[in-house]
Amino acid sequence: MPTEQLIGLDLGGTNIKARLVDAQGRVVAAQDMPTYVEQGTEQVISRMADAVRAVCDLGRVRVAEVAGVGVAAPGPLDMKRGVIEKSVNLPGWIDVPIVKQLTRTLRRPVTLLNDASAACFGEYWVGAGMCVDELAMFTLGTGVGGGLVSGGRLVFGGFAQAGELGHIIVTRDGRLCGCGQHGCVEAYASESHMVRRGRELGVFGDDDAENVPTLLAAAKSGSEPAQRIWADCCHAIATACVTLQHVLNPRLILLGGGVAAAGDDILLPVRTAYASLAWQMTSDAPNIELAALGSSAGAIGAAGWFLHRRGAV
Amino acid sequence: MPTEQLIGLDLGGTNIKARLVDAQGRVVAAQDMPTYVEQGTEQVISRMADAVRAVCDLGRVRVAEVAGVGVAAPGPLDMKRGVIEKSVNLPGWIDVPIVKQLTRTLRRPVTLLNDASAACFGEYWVGAGMCVDELAMFTLGTGVGGGLVSGGRLVFGGFAQAGELGHIIVTRDGRLCGCGQHGCVEAYASESHMVRRGRELGVFGDDDAENVPTLLAAAKSGSEPAQRIWADCCHAIATACVTLQHVLNPRLILLGGGVAAAGDDILLPVRTAYASLAWQMTSDAPNIELAALGSSAGAIGAAGWFLHRRGAV
Repeated sequence: MPTEQLIGLDLGGTNIKARLVDAQGRVVAAQDMPTYVEQGTEQVISRMADAVRAVCDLGRVRVAEVAGVGVAAPGPLDMKRGVIEKSVNLPGWIDVPIVKQLTRTLRRPVTLLNDASAACFGEYWVGAGMCVDELAMFTLGTGVGGGLVSGGRLVFGGFAQAGELGHIIVTRDGRLCGCGQHGCVEAYASESHMVRRGRELGVFGDDDAENVPTLLAAAKSGSEPAQRIWADCCHAIATACVTLQHVLNPRLILLGGGVAAAGDDILLPVRTAYASLAWQMTSDAPNIELAALGSSAGAIGAAGWFLHRRGAV
Repeated sequence: MPTEQLIGLDLGGTNIKARLVDAQGRVVAAQDMPTYVEQGTEQVISRMADAVRAVCDLGRVRVAEVAGVGVAAPGPLDMKRGVIEKSVNLPGWIDVPIVKQLTRTLRRPVTLLNDASAACFGEYWVGAGMCVDELAMFTLGTGVGGGLVSGGRLVFGGFAQAGELGHIIVTRDGRLCGCGQHGCVEAYASESHMVRRGRELGVFGDDDAENVPTLLAAAKSGSEPAQRIWADCCHAIATACVTLQHVLNPRLILLGGGVAAAGDDILLPVRTAYASLAWQMTSDAPNIELAALGSSAGAIGAAGWFLHRRGAV
């Protein structure tokens, strides 16, 4: 008997990622499509349905045969109503009943989860945080998000806004974040802020792609401003790790998202900064590691969340 | 039939607080005794037992008649083994099996809980956070501790060290905290740090008691350094509240402990600083309020925890 299969969909500002996943979290087929968010919600949701059909074709399964669809989307969400309330990354999306619309189109049951929580849940389910019941994860991308598992359960908080680890304040009167606060992790460790600062400090040449790999290459070639930007990024993440240690006391903190593709170039300086910042009173410090599922984490986690909501994970 | 009664014991560096409590969390009788921590663990534990007997006498109940004893003690603890591992506030206490010793002496079942978690649990059980399933509490005293309730459960974390809200980092390269970190909440908002800074800045006169009430009175009389110390205290707490909002998203944050006896003089500036620091994207901000149980919170919470462990709360 073939194992049950399901769909994870990760709705981002740039791409829609669809993954056909089996009940053990293995990716059977993958299909990415551009979001074209400027075309409006109807078109984007229609393309999400197309992505589901395409990934089912790739995996030689009919949509009617999959157990269901887990959607990961940028928040804030109303998970109970299945609604995207509004989103910085999806301009113009206000109170979009995405679960209802996808359910109607695909005729399969649909669940909804914040994208960063989904990535964390994916790593908890089948990734680098597998079965670690006290887990925190940073998703370091255009912005900085995060997810938390405490006592073996995703943490949502009183208004379902928990796990926004990018908005932990790491210094007083620090850089202005897009959220309106000063000194957030995101203002130092997100790709958008690092690139902006790189421009301010003249890190990029005329022909350079203005992104984190260029910045990191410049730092390695001896560019002092690039080194400062990178050091501040790692210092901000490490400071937030110290705060998390004392607030939630996780056993493991994962670094995921596009910026974490830097691998040891981010992991090792974060660990070094952490060791220089943390108190010496306890040896119960969390391990800090790289996430394992890469850019599929959100879609895999969304699929896992579908199973979890049904009571199978 | 009289309602069931039990004992809450709060072991502090200065005082042992014993409370005879009924199953609804009402204090029937109260007895405080000096700890005299320098006399050693045997003597202190013996005096804890004396406090239990004394508060039972006051309440006209025999020790053998109480359901059990809940102990709150400074950590780190090993709750499972019932052991105080070590404590900054109890010098020389290393791996003290307090649950075993009190059980043997009193011949009643005994539970053990971190004192700040106990205060939070007390407020959650019958205080200002009653039934608020997403709750955070600062205990602002000689040091700064804290407790967390998430999803209706106390948060312990991977190594039972969660809820140490005093060691949230609020600024980079800030004042040195007793824990070895820089820029902790505790380095700005604990009585010991405020008093030390008050001395450094010449706030206290020769005849002044060097404590927070004196400092606050000086601030109100126009002392600029005293005002700065108080403002930094409130700013540090508010910054940590913003971080908590994004990490755990509580509905309510309580300010308790001796420093919070300042009442509106601390509550209102913390709220003002919070409003100036927090992002404007969401209206789902936590309420910030004063705790309700005063210096009995730890003992009441320890008693409530005993009932909870037995399955009655």
